[in-house]
Amino acid sequence: MNPFLYSIPTKVYFGENQLGHLGPELARFGQRVLLTYGGGSIKATGLYDRVVAEIRKAGLVLFELPGIEPNPRVTSVRQGAELCKREKIDVLLAVGGGSTIDCTKFIGAGAFYDGDPWDLSTGAAKIAQCLPIVTVLTLSATGSEMDSGGVITNLETREKLGNGHPVMVPKVSFLDPTNTYTVSAYQTACGAADILSHTLEVYCNTEPDLELLDGFMEHLVRTVVQFAPVAQREPTNYEARANLMWASSWAINGFVVGGRRQAWSCHPIEHEVSAIYDITHGLGLAILTPRWMEYCLDARTAPRLARFARNVFGVDPALDPSVAAREGIRRLSAFYFETLGLKSSFTALGIDRTHFAHMARKACEGGTIHGFQPLDQKAVETIFEMCL
Amino acid sequence: MNPFLYSIPTKVYFGENQLGHLGPELARFGQRVLLTYGGGSIKATGLYDRVVAEIRKAGLVLFELPGIEPNPRVTSVRQGAELCKREKIDVLLAVGGGSTIDCTKFIGAGAFYDGDPWDLSTGAAKIAQCLPIVTVLTLSATGSEMDSGGVITNLETREKLGNGHPVMVPKVSFLDPTNTYTVSAYQTACGAADILSHTLEVYCNTEPDLELLDGFMEHLVRTVVQFAPVAQREPTNYEARANLMWASSWAINGFVVGGRRQAWSCHPIEHEVSAIYDITHGLGLAILTPRWMEYCLDARTAPRLARFARNVFGVDPALDPSVAAREGIRRLSAFYFETLGLKSSFTALGIDRTHFAHMARKACEGGTIHGFQPLDQKAVETIFEMCL
Repeated sequence: MNPFLYSIPTKVYFGENQLGHLGPELARFGQRVLLTYGGGSIKATGLYDRVVAEIRKAGLVLFELPGIEPNPRVTSVRQGAELCKREKIDVLLAVGGGSTIDCTKFIGAGAFYDGDPWDLSTGAAKIAQCLPIVTVLTLSATGSEMDSGGVITNLETREKLGNGHPVMVPKVSFLDPTNTYTVSAYQTACGAADILSHTLEVYCNTEPDLELLDGFMEHLVRTVVQFAPVAQREPTNYEARANLMWASSWAINGFVVGGRRQAWSCHPIEHEVSAIYDITHGLGLAILTPRWMEYCLDARTAPRLARFARNVFGVDPALDPSVAAREGIRRLSAFYFETLGLKSSFTALGIDRTHFAHMARKACEGGTIHGFQPLDQKAVETIFEMCL
Repeated sequence: MNPFLYSIPTKVYFGENQLGHLGPELARFGQRVLLTYGGGSIKATGLYDRVVAEIRKAGLVLFELPGIEPNPRVTSVRQGAELCKREKIDVLLAVGGGSTIDCTKFIGAGAFYDGDPWDLSTGAAKIAQCLPIVTVLTLSATGSEMDSGGVITNLETREKLGNGHPVMVPKVSFLDPTNTYTVSAYQTACGAADILSHTLEVYCNTEPDLELLDGFMEHLVRTVVQFAPVAQREPTNYEARANLMWASSWAINGFVVGGRRQAWSCHPIEHEVSAIYDITHGLGLAILTPRWMEYCLDARTAPRLARFARNVFGVDPALDPSVAAREGIRRLSAFYFETLGLKSSFTALGIDRTHFAHMARKACEGGTIHGFQPLDQKAVETIFEMCL
């Protein structure tokens, strides 16, 4: 069991009607606020107006960067970092989902960097400082509201790169489940798949670690499996939205990791797919994850996958581990593709073999991925084939 | 479902061989360190020497306050606060269990208060500021290493009072399971009972809250039930000690509470017992908790207790809720008094009816306790009778 550092300094206002705290929290960091958001859905829901009203009430100076894309672009990061420098921004306020928050993290780091902020994604330059970030979350999925990482896409180089640093962890996040009431059934499903993937990337591990965390991860999965379909059927079900929202944060804020050391597998692979095809991250993960689990299944990994099957889906404990493991994977697939109604294959998304070799090579650019099973380029191509 | 604020800023170094970080972490807060500890067991284990070596390596100035009692006394708080003022202490380093850490919290707050620090326990004065606190934990029990509270005993007034404030949350805690290898089987059992009580005070609640947290609490209990007996049998079992240690922090650091609003019941009642009899807090809780659950059992609370019985002890889901609830309470009692070998009654501890009326009156001094069931003085006396 490895030692680990636990540090989650984000302060979270969870629940309805907490926006009254927004002004004073922003004011702790300064007067000049840059509000970042996406395509304008927050204007349609009225959240934009409520946020702006709180900023005005606190007497702060407001700047805006709208139009942050899903799979956010480095062009937005550049624009935001430039604006921060020019306007001497004190604090960033990201209102949106993981894309807006991820982009805002790199804007905050870019504000302290003289070169092209893309260097902070590639690792060509080190992330050293970041403007304080406050978030108002509108989508339960990436966990960016409580973690240190973000993923940025560069359309010129056809790259989608994740990076992070503790200085980028949001200082304060507002998690109001009612702000996700307008999330579509499709996006709710993609968000659920993202949460489950974050959990399973850590859980699918043969290294011994804390039982306390193993059981918590199983309960995270059970919670998402229980409430995502409820949120799809009843978009304004507070209990369902609240459980998904808190699950999204806790799947990836660092708590579940403990001392486990292992590379993530599905995330870097999916990033190569959505870098080319611009599909929703969660959908890509839903298609890849069960195939990856199946690819990884052997005598060494079967007990772990069998435990997952038993404790999450109630698969018969008397079954042979490899049989139970297969049944667990089948139940997970059924959850994604039957219960949540997500498309179940690359073929259904119009993705064919054209870029498999390229995407697999890019996924393994840093060498073999040492995850649940080691994955080299050939292995990733095999998993892609399984996704057809 | 109520809104809530989540904020746990404590940085935790979890695992073996992390003390190399102690010096730099202390130095962040200043040069003058007050080391607080208990009866000297840390000298016997060599932990004292290792801690002092790190302080010297960092070039810090060391002051010491040894002799902090179990059920720590206000006299120690007074002495420590005085020393902080006199020596212009910058940072407090508590090395020990919950008693040492609790006492250190009130020393840290007392350093900023001109009157008698007991006022900070009674509420006669408000806690406003606190010296930064770093801890090295040696007992898995109270969770004081990651929370904002503490309990202080005043032998003159025969009072044992809990109070707390976010400024008293430790900045950094070192949780090395090997530092609990020397904890006796008896103290391991008392610690386990304390962890379970923290969890059950929150879990035993009929207010709806997040399923994510309900399941986590059930897993906290399962984890303690699984590993406390292992730690008793094999004191140097790292896995068992590690699970108990991390469980102790997470049972009470605020995470499990969510938006639940409810007064704690067993803790304030137990404090009145140990204020008079100076018994180990965890032992008092082990004796009180199952009786309290039994007292609380009625048609309204049965479903909750039945869920506990099913999910923690695997009690047959087909049983009637009140039957299942009784079986769960029986299994919890068996865990405390058979598996862990704790004494099962007040009588076995030499506690008779003499002070029942006084203790019950003190427990309800602030009015009826509005917990799982409302408890007035008469109710508390009834629970005491059940403990004989």
